[in-house]
Amino acid sequence: MSSTEIREPKYRAVADHLTRLLEELGEGAAIPTERELARHFAVSRVTVRQAVQELLVAGRLRRHGRGTVVAGPKIVQQLVLGSYTEGLHEQGRQPGRRLVHADRLPASAELAAELGIAEADEVIVLERVLLADGHPVGLEDTRLPLVRFPRLLAEFDPATSLYTYVRSTGVELETATERIETVLAAPREAMLLETNPGAPMLLLNRVSRDVAGRPIERVRSLFRGDRFSFVTTLRRG
Amino acid sequence: MSSTEIREPKYRAVADHLTRLLEELGEGAAIPTERELARHFAVSRVTVRQAVQELLVAGRLRRHGRGTVVAGPKIVQQLVLGSYTEGLHEQGRQPGRRLVHADRLPASAELAAELGIAEADEVIVLERVLLADGHPVGLEDTRLPLVRFPRLLAEFDPATSLYTYVRSTGVELETATERIETVLAAPREAMLLETNPGAPMLLLNRVSRDVAGRPIERVRSLFRGDRFSFVTTLRRG
Repeated sequence: MSSTEIREPKYRAVADHLTRLLEELGEGAAIPTERELARHFAVSRVTVRQAVQELLVAGRLRRHGRGTVVAGPKIVQQLVLGSYTEGLHEQGRQPGRRLVHADRLPASAELAAELGIAEADEVIVLERVLLADGHPVGLEDTRLPLVRFPRLLAEFDPATSLYTYVRSTGVELETATERIETVLAAPREAMLLETNPGAPMLLLNRVSRDVAGRPIERVRSLFRGDRFSFVTTLRRG
Repeated sequence: MSSTEIREPKYRAVADHLTRLLEELGEGAAIPTERELARHFAVSRVTVRQAVQELLVAGRLRRHGRGTVVAGPKIVQQLVLGSYTEGLHEQGRQPGRRLVHADRLPASAELAAELGIAEADEVIVLERVLLADGHPVGLEDTRLPLVRFPRLLAEFDPATSLYTYVRSTGVELETATERIETVLAAPREAMLLETNPGAPMLLLNRVSRDVAGRPIERVRSLFRGDRFSFVTTLRRG
């Protein structure tokens, strides 16, 4: 066996066949039952289940009620210093945010260093589920120095864009550093995002700064890997 | 139970304890045996195994021979229109590339559209494993129009930077569109990257263009999620 050849497990072949079937069916169409697929491909129902599971994780299929339907394309978000709300509107999708919790807490040493404040200085914590067309697609944890936004917890409506509120206080975000990696959903995250623990996620860690270069927020955003992708345009440096 | 509370499985608590232990041990140190950890945390060996598995997938631990050691930090690559080789050098790591295969093939309709050529026009296919300090971390599939690089297969040394070769032919890359998502390793990909099928990966799809806006290459790069992260600087639009 050469280094480029490997025998693919049977469910992979079924997944490939199913993928072609999905293209014919089109978005939102229900797929045949496990039993019908097993008969059609002459494989066991266990094999069909593995293939369907793979296509669910890849975002090609999604659960709908008790059935399984062809999923739409992943959301493609630009990597820009803009808000989630604006990004979704540009794609003709309905953005939404659901507050999980809002609080004020003393900053850890690590967070204080990132936000340019002293350890134990108070920060605002906002945790929100991000919705697209009513479905949970992301989980966003934003931490801001309380001293910069003393009235935020009283004034800000967590169902709206935080960046719009920040601008309304006279603060302009100028730059951000964003780090992208992949992680698996922890049980609590999976529950909030209505997916399974261990589902692959895109994790974005952002620190945004104002025009004077002072850190304004640290954001940890988790996006469902089956629903989200990011695009960016690169230019010669 | 409120929507923010969920009982964490026991292995998660062990994984958290282990994470703190790793920080004390430091990079490269061997962790205690499964049996020792089970006794230390007063849990079953199955629970220890689940916790270790989670930290392996997260890139906090790595296998070393028959043991398990504390992993170093993930590689942090800038999202820029530069080569993998340059990016790794900047981090003081030794880049390498191992050819999997090089070939010429007629373009599919989809690829032809992306490369601005006619369907069935010939393209060069280069598949290479990307190495960091000798370990496989990525798998790169690059496709270029043969007409633009007629001598590539004869002249280019696949262990070196393709972008350096491209520049030597007088072509300058000016812009690229890059799309980032997370996928699970297929069996063949996992084998080439010395990881397990189903391991989470970062997938980057890039189309690069020259100064005249003509497409030069389409690249599909897969990076091990436990070893790689990407950073970018965002500016107000």
